[in-house]
Order: sequence, then C-alpha cells, then structure tokens
Amino acid sequence: MKETFIKELMKVELKNPIMIEGLPGLGLVGKIAIRYLIKKLNAQKFAHLYSPHFPYFVLVNKKGSVRLLRGTFYFWKNDGGESDLILFTGDSQAQTIEGQYEISNKILDFAKQCNVKLVITIGGYRVEVKDKPKVIAAATNQNVLDRALKADAIISPLGSPIVGTAGLILGLAPFKKIDALCLLGETRGYLPDPKAAKSVLEVLSKFLGLSLDLSGLDEEIAKAENMVARLHKIEEKRALQAEEMRREEDKKITYIS
Amino acid sequence: MKETFIKELMKVELKNPIMIEGLPGLGLVGKIAIRYLIKKLNAQKFAHLYSPHFPYFVLVNKKGSVRLLRGTFYFWKNDGGESDLILFTGDSQAQTIEGQYEISNKILDFAKQCNVKLVITIGGYRVEVKDKPKVIAAATNQNVLDRALKADAIISPLGSPIVGTAGLILGLAPFKKIDALCLLGETRGYLPDPKAAKSVLEVLSKFLGLSLDLSGLDEEIAKAENMVARLHKIEEKRALQAEEMRREEDKKITYIS
Amino acid sequence: MKETFIKELMKVELKNPIMIEGLPGLGLVGKIAIRYLIKKLNAQKFAHLYSPHFPYFVLVNKKGSVRLLRGTFYFWKNDGGESDLILFTGDSQAQTIEGQYEISNKILDFAKQCNVKLVITIGGYRVEVKDKPKVIAAATNQNVLDRALKADAIISPLGSPIVGTAGLILGLAPFKKIDALCLLGETRGYLPDPKAAKSVLEVLSKFLGLSLDLSGLDEEIAKAENMVARLHKIEEKRALQAEEMRREEDKKITYIS
Amino acid sequence: MKETFIKELMKVELKNPIMIEGLPGLGLVGKIAIRYLIKKLNAQKFAHLYSPHFPYFVLVNKKGSVRLLRGTFYFWKNDGGESDLILFTGDSQAQTIEGQYEISNKILDFAKQCNVKLVITIGGYRVEVKDKPKVIAAATNQNVLDRALKADAIISPLGSPIVGTAGLILGLAPFKKIDALCLLGETRGYLPDPKAAKSVLEVLSKFLGLSLDLSGLDEEIAKAENMVARLHKIEEKRALQAEEMRREEDKKITYIS
Repeated sequence: MKETFIKELMKVELKNPIMIEGLPGLGLVGKIAIRYLIKKLNAQKFAHLYSPHFPYFVLVNKKGSVRLLRGTFYFWKNDGGESDLILFTGDSQAQTIEGQYEISNKILDFAKQCNVKLVITIGGYRVEVKDKPKVIAAATNQNVLDRALKADAIISPLGSPIVGTAGLILGLAPFKKIDALCLLGETRGYLPDPKAAKSVLEVLSKFLGLSLDLSGLDEEIAKAENMVARLHKIEEKRALQAEEMRREEDKKITYIS
Repeated sequence: MKETFIKELMKVELKNPIMIEGLPGLGLVGKIAIRYLIKKLNAQKFAHLYSPHFPYFVLVNKKGSVRLLRGTFYFWKNDGGESDLILFTGDSQAQTIEGQYEISNKILDFAKQCNVKLVITIGGYRVEVKDKPKVIAAATNQNVLDRALKADAIISPLGSPIVGTAGLILGLAPFKKIDALCLLGETRGYLPDPKAAKSVLEVLSKFLGLSLDLSGLDEEIAKAENMVARLHKIEEKRALQAEEMRREEDKKITYIS
Repeated sequence: MKETFIKELMKVELKNPIMIEGLPGLGLVGKIAIRYLIKKLNAQKFAHLYSPHFPYFVLVNKKGSVRLLRGTFYFWKNDGGESDLILFTGDSQAQTIEGQYEISNKILDFAKQCNVKLVITIGGYRVEVKDKPKVIAAATNQNVLDRALKADAIISPLGSPIVGTAGLILGLAPFKKIDALCLLGETRGYLPDPKAAKSVLEVLSKFLGLSLDLSGLDEEIAKAENMVARLHKIEEKRALQAEEMRREEDKKITYIS
Repeated sequence: MKETFIKELMKVELKNPIMIEGLPGLGLVGKIAIRYLIKKLNAQKFAHLYSPHFPYFVLVNKKGSVRLLRGTFYFWKNDGGESDLILFTGDSQAQTIEGQYEISNKILDFAKQCNVKLVITIGGYRVEVKDKPKVIAAATNQNVLDRALKADAIISPLGSPIVGTAGLILGLAPFKKIDALCLLGETRGYLPDPKAAKSVLEVLSKFLGLSLDLSGLDEEIAKAENMVARLHKIEEKRALQAEEMRREEDKKITYIS
C-alpha cells in the first residue's frame, strides 16, 4: 500500500446520492452523528478506505480478530425520498499534511464515481457552549448555504478555519465540480459531545427532509453530562484541597513569625 | 492533488513582466507590501497556486463560503512604463522542507511561462530597529544588485540566511535562467510591520521607476505603533506590579525576622 | 535506495513455510524470541531487507567493518515436520508512518513469493506483570486463533491496539490472502524481557508442534531479574535519601522558628 | 527540483580517483579537514550537489549574491602519485531520514561515474578527549581497514553507530561495489575542533602516501583552544558568582533566625 485506496465490497446502484462525512475530530461530533445515522437508518457497508497515512497500529476486534485502521462507506436507500445517502466515517484522521490532502481527494474521487453531487461534512466548532449547541454552516455554493440556513444553521464567522478532512473536502470539492456543505456543532471539544451531534442531526434532517428520531441520542447525552459533572466535582474538590493546603501553610508562617 | 499546481483563471498578455513575491513571514512585511501594491495599482487576479504542503485547513470567506489555502497571482498593465507587473502573495508558506522547494520551483516555472526575466522577493530582516527600517538587498546578479543599491537598499551582511520562499526563489532562479532580487525590510518581526513594508516599497518604487503614493500605509503604521505602545504599557505595568509585590514580600520578611 | 527492498543471498526451496517475525519493540520480546529460535534451530540467513525508513546511521561490526541497519530472513528445514520456518528479525522498526506500512508490505510480498500461507508476529504487551507472563493472541482468521488458544494463548481484550510491524502485518495480510497470527508476551516493557519471550516461545512451540529446549533462556532471565533488582534497590535508596533530606529540612525550619 | 541532483561544472579526466567526503557534523571535523585539503592542494571545483532535503534557506555570499545550500566536489591532480583526489564538502547534512539516504546514494552514484574505487568519509567521534585525539576507523573491507590501522588509526568499538552521511556512505557503498573507509577524529563535539581534524589528516596523509603540511591548522587550533579557555573562565566565573550569592542568602537566613 503506497497510497490511500478504496476497496469496494459490493456494487450498488444509488439514486441521486448525497454523501455525508464525519471522521473523529473535536468532540467526536462528526463520528457520533454518522454512527447514529448508520444505526437508525440501518445503512449497509459497501466500501473501505485504507491509507498509509493513518497511524501505524491495528485494532483488535471482538473475538481476537484484527484489522487495519480504515474508513468505511455505508449506503442507505431512501425509498420514499429523492436522494439515497452515502455515509462515511472511520477510525482516525490522516497523521500527515500530505495524507490529509490525499484522503480528502480520494473521498471526493469516490463521491464522483458514485455520481454524488453534494457532499456534507460534519465536525465540531470549539466554543464555550452555554445552552443548546448551535450549528455553524459553510458551503462552496450560495444556494446550498441558503438551504442550510433555512434548516436553522447559522453562518460561520469570517476567517475562521475548518481543520482536517471536514474542511479540506470543502476546499477540494470545487475542483471535482461537486458541491459541499460543512455543518459544525458547537462543542467545548475535549470530551465526546453527543449533544453537539444531536444539534447537527436536527439541522441535517431538516436540510434533507428526513424525519429522523433523535431521542436515541438522549441517553448518550445524559451519560456525557454525568461525566462532565463528575469531572467538575473532581476539579472543585481539588481546588478546595488546594485552598485548604494554602491556609495550613499560612498558619505555619504565622506560627513561624 | 498530489503536488503543488497553478490554476490559471484567464490568459493575459504581459509586456516584459517583472514578478514580485511576498508571502507571510517575519513581520508580514512581504504580504503587507504586496497587498498594498495590489490595492494601489488595482491589480487583477489571474491565477491561483494550490499545494498539499499548505496547512490542512480551509478558511471561511465572507458569506459562509469556503476556500483552500492558496497563493494568488495578480497582474498590472503598466501602460506608461516598460514592464508590466505580476504580484504574488498568499495565505501561508509551505509546512514541509520538500514543500518549500516545490512551491518555489512552481512559482519560478510559472514566471518562466509568463516570460518573466526578473523576480523580486520581499521579506523581513530581524533586527532591533531604531529609526526608519533599512532595506537589505541580495541578488543573483551583480547588475540587479547595483540597481537595488542605487534605489537606497543596503547590502546584506555576509553569511546571513534568507529563510523560506523569499530565499529559495533566489537560490533556484539561476537554474531557470531568471534573475532574482530579494528586498528585506528591517523588522522586530513579532507583529505585523507596515513600517518595514513602507521602506521596502520606497526602494521598490525607485527600483522600478514607479511613482507610488505610499501615504495609505501611514494609517496602518499608526495603528501598529499604537498596538506596540499598548503592549509596552502592559509590560511596564506588569514590571511595576512585580516590583511592588517584591517590596511587599520584603516587608513581610522584615516583619518575620 | 528510494524504497525498501529485499536482497536475496541465495535461493532456497522451502516446504510449506511459516514465517515468524520479531523486530525490536516493547521489552524486545519479538527480537529475543527470534534470536533464540535462530540459535537453537541453527537457522541460516538467506535474505536482507534494507530501507530508507530505518534510522540514518550504520553500525560497526566486529573487526571494524560496517553495515546498514537492516532486517534479516533466516530459514530452517524442519526435516521431520510439516512446515519449514522462515525467521525474520532486524535492527530497528521504521522511523516514519509511511515506512511502517512500506516495510510491512515488503515482508508480506516476500512471504507471498516464498509461498508462505501463515505469518506469525511476536511482540510485547505492556502490563504490570505479576507472575508468569501470559501470551495474548490475535489473528486474521478464527481457525488460526483457535489453534493459538489451544496452545495456551489467551484472547486479546477488545479494542486494544497492536503497534508497529507486528500489528500492521496482521492488518495487511488479508490483502495478500495470507493468514496471520500475533503473539504478544506480557511485559513491563522498559527493559529487555527474556521471560516474556520464553512465554511466547512456549506457546509458539506448542502451536507449531515443535519440541524446543527453552532452558537456554533461563540464564538471560536470571541476568534480567538481577538488573531489575539492582534498579529497584537504587530507586529505594534514592527514596530513602530524599526522605532523610526532607527530615533534615524540617529540623532546619523548626530551628529557624 | 524534486530530488537530489548533481550539476557538473566541467568534465575532468581523473586517474584512479579516491573520493574523500566531509560534511558538517560533530566538531565540524569532516568539514574542517576537507576545507584544509582543498586549500593546501589548491583543488578545483567541478560539480555541485543540490537537494530539496537541505534546510529551506539560502545564504548571502560576499557582495550580496545568494546561493542555495549545496555540496561541492573538488578535484586534485596528484601528478607524482597513483591516485587523483575528489574532495566533497558542503553546507549541511540532509534534514530528513529519506534525504540522508538519498544524498548518500547520489554521492556514491557520482563516485561510480567518476570511476572511484574507494570513498573515504571523515567525521567526529564523541568522547571526553584527554590528550591528542585518536582516529577511529571502520571500513567495508578488511584490507582497507588494515591499511588504515597501519596509518595509525585505531579500530572502532563494536556496535558503536556512525550517524549521517559519513556512516550511510559506508553502509551503501557495497551495493555499488565501491570500497569505503570512515575516519572519525575524537572530539567533544560541541565546538569546531581543528585538533581532531588534524589528527584525521595525519592518518589520511599516511594512508594516501601524501606529504601534507598540516602546520596551517595550528593557528586554528590555538584559536579554538582560546575559545574553549574563555568559555571555561565564563563558566567558572558564573559558578563563583552563584556560590557567592548562595553565601549571601545564607547570611540573610542566619540573620533572620
């Protein structure tokens, strides 16, 4: 394997397919969103992406079997609707600059080959989230952006960067004459953030005209909030202990003098 | 995109063109100078340079549209004069050693294709500037250097390195049989330095025989000096506070003893 | 040398060969195991692997001669048994991500060329070992894994990564239609660990139906345990000294007050 | 420039040429030795080596002209003797692993093309030198090594690494059917070390049967020793000041108590 390649597991005929990408990144927003879609829609694997730019280890699966790090493409036949979906997620982003460009290119080449006209990338947007995470949109095309704004996304601040595959796909899509939209869920980013993923999926389902039951994410959100609360308590306890130690030190000094 | 490439937006016929390059670097001297030239001369975009050696993020433009990091070539028809100009600037330098060589090579290949006989690169020269920043010149050719010295540049100290694209273009130009001149404005380098850019543009306009109104830079210079002054005040205040704290500590110790 | 290549020293005809790989890694488990096999079986060199992804130094051999870092393939004719063996070890793992993939690929290509149907990789598994190190197995194929478990290996925990060549060979083997098994000896990993290597060789000889005298490793194990004991004593002594110093400091403070 | 290449400035006919390499490294031993040879023998430039694996800056030469980092080949016609010499030195070693292998390969390809049968590489060997620096030898060939030992080199300790181009050339030479010898002068390595270079040149001139006046290095050695002495004084002074400060602090504490 000298460069990134895609291995098709089967041939599928898709109707007007839209591709949606979400690799691990800030708050794992993209990956959580895509995995939820795969589960809810019961989407089927049909291709793997392998790359020598992924980290050089393998993962042990259930039952002691082993596999390379990889990305996986799933399809979903949207029988009632206009567009079938291709969903893409994976274990990792590329570890090198050139790998980042190479992998984004391969994803777009595969999209082209599948006759995809629109790729949607999902990621996180780092910010101190107060209430419900907002969803920031950017696009290669005004019309697509307007549709995202109608679906309750907000516009991205001027000049803010979109890092990694979610961003490069947008940057490279025009060279392949494919439209691309990026949806970023607001997240503090340092823990898996299913709440941000839920916000993105709300916008996405409105954008796609899909009716999607998102209640399945609420349990994950509750778990994540418990974890955050636990971490806060640990931090507070540490702060209190530090305060107490400082006071003890103060007493000592007073005693010395 | 496996390697750096240039995408032409239109074909232009240029008369004896001279190319002037200024990417981000020390004090942003090169980029500030080129952007001022573009604005003042109302130069027109005609080509983009893309590279997998740029950082792997995209930037959100106004109105939520997105683009890859890139360099841009502009042209200006110098109707009264001898030589039309090609101006080049961009978002970033290459992030890898090989990328630095590759991008400098592509710029020179494009210069060759445009029939450019002289490339001028602009950058910063790190030094503790006292008064008006001087402009240091180095060249691939004694005649070009002499003309730069006549235009009030000074000669570069022996053995000093010129880092990045501004330097490599000079190093690689002789292989393409193109002359090259580097103009470096003295700068402390840690903040955008329009004053250094103005010094370079003074030398450049004399060198090119262009009459160029540089007063538009004075506002930027005033802003930059305000910022430096503010930073100095903050530093002084911090120093004073530290001094005061030390005195308080001294009192304490005296009290203890 | 632009890429990894294998240089054959002689042509050998092997019967149903199984390849066993062990490069330096955690606790040097793989390298110690392979070197013991080479010595015990009196296996013969028949090919070298060179790579520009190995570190850029050479080693001085006995008598002042010099050689590149490399891997070496040995063969052993198993006259009584079913399968001859190819043993592979070397000086180093690749130093780059792409190099890791390239070297693992080359090893598998060579295995294919030698008509190998099964590759076994050996490494270390980092854990706080209490008693006898266990041997963790993972495989590309359920049947191979079952045979390893019968030979007293245990199954790998879900999701644990196998880093480096020992892992990538398993990940890449299915693309070449070769089966692969990984045997990892439990080790603390920060010192050469012949005890972990012995555990692996016990499983391996049972798996292969080889009767192998492993008592030769006991001397190395004794030496390694002496070294660990010495290191522990040094650490304890340091801790005692630190404790004593703290007490002295405490006295001082009491005296001051 | 996509890869390392050699540009010949002229064609030369050489008699049984021996190539001697010395790039910057530990104590600059190799570079100092080669530069002294070039000067003493009045050797002539005949080729440059350029590489995208050198650092990405250019150097300003005298008179404000500029050049890429590069290596340079010189030749010397040894009219009375058996073998002409090719001398190679340069500005820098490669900055990447692959570049190290690529450059060493190109040097050997060029040696082959010049009909060179023996390449001698020069470097430093890090050690706490007491008296006169010894010269350590390693070779690809017992006969060459024996000749070096007769010329007062000593044999390299088993297993010690030779890092960089000086080492890789030895490692790669057998693939090109060229003999290679490495001569390493003992040096502390953190400052330019003409004394180590002189030791190497003594061995080298004996090895080659050249009568070479090395007294010209004595001035450089004196300068280097002055610098070392100055650095030692500065360190001693700092140590004294630190000692004094500690005593002042002690007084303070005594006073407090």
